[in-house]
Amino acid sequence: MKHRLAFFRFACVLLLLSVTAMAEDPLPSWNDGAAKQAILNFVRTTTDPSHPNFVPAEQRIATFDQDGTTWVEHPIFPEDIFAFDRIVAVAPQHPEWKTTRPFATILSGDKEAMTKLGAEDLENILLATHSGMAVEEFHTMASDWIATAKHPRWQRPYTELVYQPMLEVMRYLRANGYKTYMVTGGDQEFVRSYAEKVYGIPPEQVIGSTVAIQFTYNKDGQGILTRPPKMLLNDKFSGKAEDIYLFTGRHSKAAFGNSTGDQQMLEYTQAGGGASLMMLVLHDDAEREYAYGPAQGLPDTKFGTFTQALYDEARAKGWTVISMKKDWRHIFSFQE
Amino acid sequence: MKHRLAFFRFACVLLLLSVTAMAEDPLPSWNDGAAKQAILNFVRTTTDPSHPNFVPAEQRIATFDQDGTTWVEHPIFPEDIFAFDRIVAVAPQHPEWKTTRPFATILSGDKEAMTKLGAEDLENILLATHSGMAVEEFHTMASDWIATAKHPRWQRPYTELVYQPMLEVMRYLRANGYKTYMVTGGDQEFVRSYAEKVYGIPPEQVIGSTVAIQFTYNKDGQGILTRPPKMLLNDKFSGKAEDIYLFTGRHSKAAFGNSTGDQQMLEYTQAGGGASLMMLVLHDDAEREYAYGPAQGLPDTKFGTFTQALYDEARAKGWTVISMKKDWRHIFSFQE
Repeated sequence: MKHRLAFFRFACVLLLLSVTAMAEDPLPSWNDGAAKQAILNFVRTTTDPSHPNFVPAEQRIATFDQDGTTWVEHPIFPEDIFAFDRIVAVAPQHPEWKTTRPFATILSGDKEAMTKLGAEDLENILLATHSGMAVEEFHTMASDWIATAKHPRWQRPYTELVYQPMLEVMRYLRANGYKTYMVTGGDQEFVRSYAEKVYGIPPEQVIGSTVAIQFTYNKDGQGILTRPPKMLLNDKFSGKAEDIYLFTGRHSKAAFGNSTGDQQMLEYTQAGGGASLMMLVLHDDAEREYAYGPAQGLPDTKFGTFTQALYDEARAKGWTVISMKKDWRHIFSFQE
Repeated sequence: MKHRLAFFRFACVLLLLSVTAMAEDPLPSWNDGAAKQAILNFVRTTTDPSHPNFVPAEQRIATFDQDGTTWVEHPIFPEDIFAFDRIVAVAPQHPEWKTTRPFATILSGDKEAMTKLGAEDLENILLATHSGMAVEEFHTMASDWIATAKHPRWQRPYTELVYQPMLEVMRYLRANGYKTYMVTGGDQEFVRSYAEKVYGIPPEQVIGSTVAIQFTYNKDGQGILTRPPKMLLNDKFSGKAEDIYLFTGRHSKAAFGNSTGDQQMLEYTQAGGGASLMMLVLHDDAEREYAYGPAQGLPDTKFGTFTQALYDEARAKGWTVISMKKDWRHIFSFQE
């Protein structure tokens, strides 16, 4: 009896310790390993005033790519689906589209053909659907769509297909004084329409590709802002590094990506000197999400991919590759 | 004796009341009047959750033009003087400038001729001096210059020629949850080099004209950002309204300007709906600062001016015109 009581006490202490440890783990969806340790170590050392890696509060900037880094981009970028849906919605006003490439492909409903559209076709589709209206009008189109559209595989809203481990990293960074920025090849206004709700990132911390914004007067003489069909910023590849500086005048200290489209953002983060954290998400989990990229013998994504050269660069420069399969205990919140 | 004591007590109470009132006045450099009341009223009502003008914390955005609104722009914009000084500094590497317009005008040292340079000449001078280097290099050039250059009239650094009443407005707005942005026709990086120190405005809240920013690799293969000779953003006139939205995805709630270069920023602030504050600084104090613009029968500033049409628009739309002469008790901190 005495032994049993001692054992019970011992078990209670163990349970208490483990519950405390769980409560204190800022990254519960991450398995222990090099990736999780890299994040914990970066935050611990850069917020410790006595550590050589210390980063003053005002310089704590963390930047995240979106597609494939914080939410599902496969098999088609969610924003491309939004554009395809818009084409269908406004097609009655454009009878010529029935026989015009690339619009005819969208209107045919041939999903296989849609995944094979080239970069130029997609750009034309994006321009046609993302311009020609007031900024508020486009914002509403985007937020209406995101509230109802569903991913074909999970039949859930795209906003539920954000990666729980990355949400934890964002919260953990913010709790330690980092400003989190979304730096996306997608349209800035599209992402701003849900980024605060989904990622806790306010509109002024969303940097993205965009058409120009043009001030003009409406028929009542009131000032309005419209979206002319002319690209202004392209936040892929070099554009990410350039526009982080354009918007903030600062270096990113931590950068998260998943493809060559994020390469320069990570390179420039590292080039800033002092402490830095560069991470790349590797899609190697066909069961819970997807496995793609040349390493997996599957087709590339449209605007950049996780090439062998990028993988080699990451290894050579001390960047951290996140294996979705090994490093992430959960991928989506609904799997918890 | 008894009466004297009573009088002394009464005087003490008066003194105490007036000291308390002074301590509580967030705008001590402002004389009482419509302009000061407009600011106090705007802040009081937009931060009162029970008032119909209430503005939620995340939407509290205030935008300030710089030249002529928060510091002296007369007789030549400080940044133009910086550009002229740069021309002189690098002239030995450009012998052809001695005979090339507009560079020859600068190298001649003829101050009168410099004030008469046209917009196109100035643009060429700005492009020649503001591009062709790494972003950090330009930043250092600007901060080195601003630390040593002096205004010809007061023989003081330009950063001492900021308007004390406007600094008080910025502090007062920030103390009430407003994010203050500088939205300047001047170069964004130039202004970022001193905005935090001078205005308490961090680099990410400085929106300004800028050449493009270009990512490239240096000879060691490291990523760097350079400034090619190509304009990307022009934050005068419509550009102010457009780029506030580009950078923040939000409407400005309070906007401060002094010329037609700020007109659209004020118009779009008012068009946002709900509470808004639009203010224009009128330079009507030749003794303590300057009096200029057509109303004063003096030459226009280069990139916009306080025209009669703007004055009429302000009156018609309920904007507040700040008279430097009547509304400001002090203009510069060194006059206190």
